[in-house]
Amino acid sequence: MTEKPLILVTNDDGITAPGIRALIEVMNEIGDVVVVAPDSPQSGMGHAITINSTLFVEQLKVDDGKQKEYSCSGTPADCVKIAVNQILKRKPDLCVSGINHGSNSSINVIYSGTMSAAVEAGIEGIPAIGFSLLDYNYNADFEAAKIYVKRITENVLSNGLSDDVVLNVNIPNLSKSDINGIKICRQAKGNWKEDFDKRMTPQGRDYYWLTGKFVNLDKGEDTDEWALEHGFVSVVPIHFDLTAHHCIQNLNTWNLND
Amino acid sequence: MTEKPLILVTNDDGITAPGIRALIEVMNEIGDVVVVAPDSPQSGMGHAITINSTLFVEQLKVDDGKQKEYSCSGTPADCVKIAVNQILKRKPDLCVSGINHGSNSSINVIYSGTMSAAVEAGIEGIPAIGFSLLDYNYNADFEAAKIYVKRITENVLSNGLSDDVVLNVNIPNLSKSDINGIKICRQAKGNWKEDFDKRMTPQGRDYYWLTGKFVNLDKGEDTDEWALEHGFVSVVPIHFDLTAHHCIQNLNTWNLND
Repeated sequence: MTEKPLILVTNDDGITAPGIRALIEVMNEIGDVVVVAPDSPQSGMGHAITINSTLFVEQLKVDDGKQKEYSCSGTPADCVKIAVNQILKRKPDLCVSGINHGSNSSINVIYSGTMSAAVEAGIEGIPAIGFSLLDYNYNADFEAAKIYVKRITENVLSNGLSDDVVLNVNIPNLSKSDINGIKICRQAKGNWKEDFDKRMTPQGRDYYWLTGKFVNLDKGEDTDEWALEHGFVSVVPIHFDLTAHHCIQNLNTWNLND
Repeated sequence: MTEKPLILVTNDDGITAPGIRALIEVMNEIGDVVVVAPDSPQSGMGHAITINSTLFVEQLKVDDGKQKEYSCSGTPADCVKIAVNQILKRKPDLCVSGINHGSNSSINVIYSGTMSAAVEAGIEGIPAIGFSLLDYNYNADFEAAKIYVKRITENVLSNGLSDDVVLNVNIPNLSKSDINGIKICRQAKGNWKEDFDKRMTPQGRDYYWLTGKFVNLDKGEDTDEWALEHGFVSVVPIHFDLTAHHCIQNLNTWNLND
């Protein structure tokens, strides 16, 4: 590509989060950047879209970088849709989402607003990457992460991505010298053991906070969980054909049409 | 199973929607039914979960069926989590979600609250099915749908489902005599061509409604879209290992660790 790539940047922690600021800084070194991101945090939104409410978009300037920026009142998936359909003059060459404050490895990809934005871009035929750092703190240190964000992004731009595939990148919360490199992985089998915190309102009505603990059930050494535990950046290619193709033969043995 | 199966019923259109009423009616013929469903419509919520807000649960009685019922202030995925963790005395034998008012075929599975509830149950190791009728009307006719809901549910209970797989069932909006039977399918490749409806508030501020048109890009005759267009009930087995395993070899040729 002789022209600079057009890069759409979004996230789910909201347009002012330090994670997206770090991502914009890296992308400004690589291409022409347009940011369209939620005006408030959207963590845990999964692939939600806004169909029963209105969407507002505002152009704004959060820092003094050269990117153009817009905040949107919707979800991460909404941000990608409205960016492509209303804001950008042409289809972007790349969409990056993040850097999320917290892990989106293993089954967390399902609940992740960060990854839903990348998947939405993938559905629209745009190469896309979601980046997450394994540190939930607002003031997390993104310095080491930025090195890997840049390296992976440049690889995607030069190699291209298969149609229908986006990358889920998770970065361990380590200093640059302690990160062992990048590993291509599969999604670990794991889930959350819920632990609802039951409380009572001042008026005596029960309510709950959803909490829990992630459990990795997968002993494989080719998973994202294994890589992250061993100091590697994990890269999982994910797709949005959810068909369990290996089950079709067996289901066709059932007596469904008697 | 000699005892009656314990069946968890949920949906995304809300606990009073006619679609879930039809589903409860069928499940009451098969097992002991507990309903935990959103107290308001949650369409388009994808796999959202409520982590930044409180959850309220109320026991209630919507009709005179023999089921137990609870409404929850959260998303469909929240309903499954709180049902399994706080409401049910044991892990249910089955979770059914729907009957959704409107299609969840092809890429719509990604945006679907109905399917997110089924997937959440699958993640927790519970056999699960999401049902949708291709009619968005509140007063849709679920009579023909109920026949197929019962037949597919009984097959799942007798045959079991592979671990890590849930069923996405879509039912054409046809009378009983016009439905040609049930087909096991793969998810069609398709997407939405967005068409944002731009308007202005009385105060002069722009806002948008998200609308669009679904486009089936897949000419295969083994897809859910093909089946539905030809009068069949479509059954797509879906899984939540999103890894694009076929891409791992190629990604391992990249120079990521130089």
